[in-house]
Amino acid sequence: MYRSHNCGELRLDHVNTQVTLAGWVQRVRNKGGLIWVDLRDRYGLTQLIFEEGSTAKELLDKAGSLGREFVIQAKGTVIERTSKNDKIPTGSIEVKVVELEVLNPAKLPPFLIEDETDGGDDLRMKYRYLDLRRNVIRQKLQLRHRMMQETRKYMDAAQFIEVETPVLIKSTPEGARDFVVPSRVNPGEFYALPQSPQTFKQLLMVSGFDRYFQIVKCFRDEDLRADRQPEFTQIDCEMSFVTQEDVLSMFEGLTRHLFKEVKGVELEEVGRMTFADAMRFYGNDKPDLRFDMRFVELNDLAKGKGFGIFDQAELVVGICAKGAAEYTRKQLDALTEWVKRPQIGAKGMVYVKYNTDGSLKSTVDKFYGQEDLTAWAEAFGAEPGDLMLILSGDTKVVRKQLSELRLKMGEDLGLRDRMVFKPLWVVDFPLLEWDEETERYHAMHHPFTSPKQEDIPLLDSNPGEVRANAYDLVINGVEIGGGSIRIHDRATQQLMFKHLGFSDEEAQKQFGFLMEAFEYGAPPHGGIAFGFDRLCAIFGGSDSIRDYIAFPKNNSGRDVMIDSPSTIADEQLQELSIQLALKK
Amino acid sequence: MYRSHNCGELRLDHVNTQVTLAGWVQRVRNKGGLIWVDLRDRYGLTQLIFEEGSTAKELLDKAGSLGREFVIQAKGTVIERTSKNDKIPTGSIEVKVVELEVLNPAKLPPFLIEDETDGGDDLRMKYRYLDLRRNVIRQKLQLRHRMMQETRKYMDAAQFIEVETPVLIKSTPEGARDFVVPSRVNPGEFYALPQSPQTFKQLLMVSGFDRYFQIVKCFRDEDLRADRQPEFTQIDCEMSFVTQEDVLSMFEGLTRHLFKEVKGVELEEVGRMTFADAMRFYGNDKPDLRFDMRFVELNDLAKGKGFGIFDQAELVVGICAKGAAEYTRKQLDALTEWVKRPQIGAKGMVYVKYNTDGSLKSTVDKFYGQEDLTAWAEAFGAEPGDLMLILSGDTKVVRKQLSELRLKMGEDLGLRDRMVFKPLWVVDFPLLEWDEETERYHAMHHPFTSPKQEDIPLLDSNPGEVRANAYDLVINGVEIGGGSIRIHDRATQQLMFKHLGFSDEEAQKQFGFLMEAFEYGAPPHGGIAFGFDRLCAIFGGSDSIRDYIAFPKNNSGRDVMIDSPSTIADEQLQELSIQLALKK
Repeated sequence: MYRSHNCGELRLDHVNTQVTLAGWVQRVRNKGGLIWVDLRDRYGLTQLIFEEGSTAKELLDKAGSLGREFVIQAKGTVIERTSKNDKIPTGSIEVKVVELEVLNPAKLPPFLIEDETDGGDDLRMKYRYLDLRRNVIRQKLQLRHRMMQETRKYMDAAQFIEVETPVLIKSTPEGARDFVVPSRVNPGEFYALPQSPQTFKQLLMVSGFDRYFQIVKCFRDEDLRADRQPEFTQIDCEMSFVTQEDVLSMFEGLTRHLFKEVKGVELEEVGRMTFADAMRFYGNDKPDLRFDMRFVELNDLAKGKGFGIFDQAELVVGICAKGAAEYTRKQLDALTEWVKRPQIGAKGMVYVKYNTDGSLKSTVDKFYGQEDLTAWAEAFGAEPGDLMLILSGDTKVVRKQLSELRLKMGEDLGLRDRMVFKPLWVVDFPLLEWDEETERYHAMHHPFTSPKQEDIPLLDSNPGEVRANAYDLVINGVEIGGGSIRIHDRATQQLMFKHLGFSDEEAQKQFGFLMEAFEYGAPPHGGIAFGFDRLCAIFGGSDSIRDYIAFPKNNSGRDVMIDSPSTIADEQLQELSIQLALKK
Repeated sequence: MYRSHNCGELRLDHVNTQVTLAGWVQRVRNKGGLIWVDLRDRYGLTQLIFEEGSTAKELLDKAGSLGREFVIQAKGTVIERTSKNDKIPTGSIEVKVVELEVLNPAKLPPFLIEDETDGGDDLRMKYRYLDLRRNVIRQKLQLRHRMMQETRKYMDAAQFIEVETPVLIKSTPEGARDFVVPSRVNPGEFYALPQSPQTFKQLLMVSGFDRYFQIVKCFRDEDLRADRQPEFTQIDCEMSFVTQEDVLSMFEGLTRHLFKEVKGVELEEVGRMTFADAMRFYGNDKPDLRFDMRFVELNDLAKGKGFGIFDQAELVVGICAKGAAEYTRKQLDALTEWVKRPQIGAKGMVYVKYNTDGSLKSTVDKFYGQEDLTAWAEAFGAEPGDLMLILSGDTKVVRKQLSELRLKMGEDLGLRDRMVFKPLWVVDFPLLEWDEETERYHAMHHPFTSPKQEDIPLLDSNPGEVRANAYDLVINGVEIGGGSIRIHDRATQQLMFKHLGFSDEEAQKQFGFLMEAFEYGAPPHGGIAFGFDRLCAIFGGSDSIRDYIAFPKNNSGRDVMIDSPSTIADEQLQELSIQLALKK
């Protein structure tokens, strides 16, 4: 037994108790014949005290020589502190030490093990095990732990069965790029790591499992962006004999359960919005509803008044920023420059200030009189003090630009509070989207998503208009989860593959097992997958998922701590019947 | 809403209720103007009834045309059965159907979806989704689900944090063969899939996580045997500031919790046995203690009496099978043949019958008189009616052979009841074992296991004698879990690598990050990993893990259902900077 108590549990009740503690030296203070050592573990901090005169000289020396992050064991008696620290739960007591053992000394860490550290990103990645020692990081992983436990509690209570699906599966050409694993026993053949357990969970429904879930690692060999990892975690779920409404209700329940149990937040009812409305009103299929600032389309009011830019645009559309009429000319110029940056790409921006004196002042006064601008203001529902920002161009492009501008304005005006949570179901996604590069339709969700029954006739005439039984859960403008009601009969699945440009032969080769399974009594079914890393980040009030992953990889897919990936031995390559083919 | 109730929940209380059920047609019976359909789902079986006269003709025809495994939806009224079936919970009622919809028809399955099926192994693997539809298989996965939930409940309550460690890690030459994953972004470099999260969990201890666990997939590219899978699941755990006793006590608690909650069994206290005793008394480091039949060594009594085989043997050792003196000559000859099979490899077997009349009869009466045999019987603690079986040879070899014989006798005498559970901690394993092939010592557990402090001086003089702080949990002769107290300082870890034949440079290249971590304040720590698939099989009373895995691979590592592994496209190989190197 290395300890009788942990470093977070001693209280006044324990005074006069003999205790043994073990942990890390947070700091040592030495003053007027007294030495205090703050001893830290995961559970808290306890103050040790050594006093000249009443402590043996040898012990005093030992205490004085302790360094930061030494691992020690201390035996002693709990005493009441003369000056209490009400900032920590153990602040009323300290431990007067009679025995001290250094269990392991420590070199000086390359950065401070404090909430505010002086280590840069790269250094902290290399010494991730030290970064994880900081309370702020460990708490994020403790949040993740709690999220996992509460997720399983909810799913188990709702009779979902947790089933582990295989990690070594089969490479398919659909979707993102697969990571592959050469098979030694089957030379020339490869497994693939799953991008999701999609086909397996559908097979479990064919098997009659009725309700399945799993918290599962998935893999995508994509070029990494700031907030993407090659391996990531999903809460993966599937249900049989359900309509879309059943699925939404079940997982709204999960979301509500997590917010309540993990954050103590009573989440509001989750609204519904069609994909079409989301695009029209927010220019985005994952609108941040912590603030409104809806798009208002001005084609009827703004065209035909001689302003060529608007006249030639497919869409004139704007937002109204409440109380932002006080923006200075300089701020407005900066905003205009911002929308013109290549990342946004607008050609320009029109704004109208609704001054507090009731007058309207725009950048296009030459073309629009007060009467015109008043009509605009009415359309925006603007009031004196508000600022209207208007962009124009091709519908798809301008909506995207205005969406960015809306988010920036929300940020600038302090409307995106991290501790406010606005969930939304976005429904009725298109089934297919046109891909310019390959010149064919791709499945917007995946090829197993069912089209809305009433839209099936459009598959031949106007495929882009076909709506799917697909839905996303969005919180604060972040896509947290997505799913669909699946196709569950062979004929529809074949039709789908045909429209995705698969030959019958290809479809059979890749997904024959699934289509065959549909012929043996497949129930109607549907499901959802939540991005677990992102869900944790949202709960933690963070934009980045990286801190919510114990050992993340950097943007080149490297684990710089263990130095992976790395070269392997020639014998390994030979055994796997592969060789390197490096470009010169 | 496809159903108002599931197929397992209707009772007499529901009589006269209008219900909607959905599920699979288990069977259709048609007799005297009545049609009964057994409707099945995961939750149970409910009888539907259609009656000529009171049911519309069209509906009757539809019911009559239903085939096995059709997926249907039926609306109707719950009525009391005239002839009740007390074998199923819904046996008091049936549903008089007024509406019937075929949600999906089914082809005739290639084997019976019944507890006793007519499908062979290969067929059931190919149509695993249909095999999973059988109650007996699904119940095994439901057991697994329950084991997972209860494991997490126990670990969470004991303040263990569940942390997901990475799947894409680094290949190391130690241990079994790695599966590797070529990196596209880092040409010529590879990730490896983890054989266990060993180094990561140790780093989490260095990080101060104090208690970690995970139910995690691990991977070994080994030649497959009947009960091995390339991907398997572990309950992986690690604790800081613990001695071996703390770890044993914590995981004895987990084992006890699982038995109680999942099986309703109060497990007996888990005994301890040293590796040396296990080998001496049972010839095996995982003795099956459901029966005793301990080895008795006879060197003192059996040597020097002129029987050359015993005289020349290093060890003469036997077991006493209670009540087996009634074995016939034919049975004993068969037993002798059995031990002489190449898999066992004994040269012969001596037996002594202790007849019920008190006389002793052996196969070596020429060399041993009644007095000798009486002394033997005393050593065995034998009584009239017992049978003593004796082997001889080199210690290591003969113990192994006698262990096999002991297990066979236990089996034959019905002493290995699958519903009796005898747990045991085997402790004090050797640190190193000599490998004839590579002519060097290997770590018996793994290179991170600590030697017993008092044995460290032996490392140079007699490495094979050094004992480790390593332990295995054995239940009914099956190794369920194993672990150790780890090395937590750089010097000892380096010493260990040296004894394993690593050069300093190799050790640094492969495990430098871990040894460096030990220099920044590593606490004493230790842990354990349970083979989860095997644990589930033991709980289910089965020898084979395969049925406890939803989608297992066959003995060539193939998933015959999805046909994986498979070839991949040339473009994929190019992107990964590798090419095939198939042997002609």
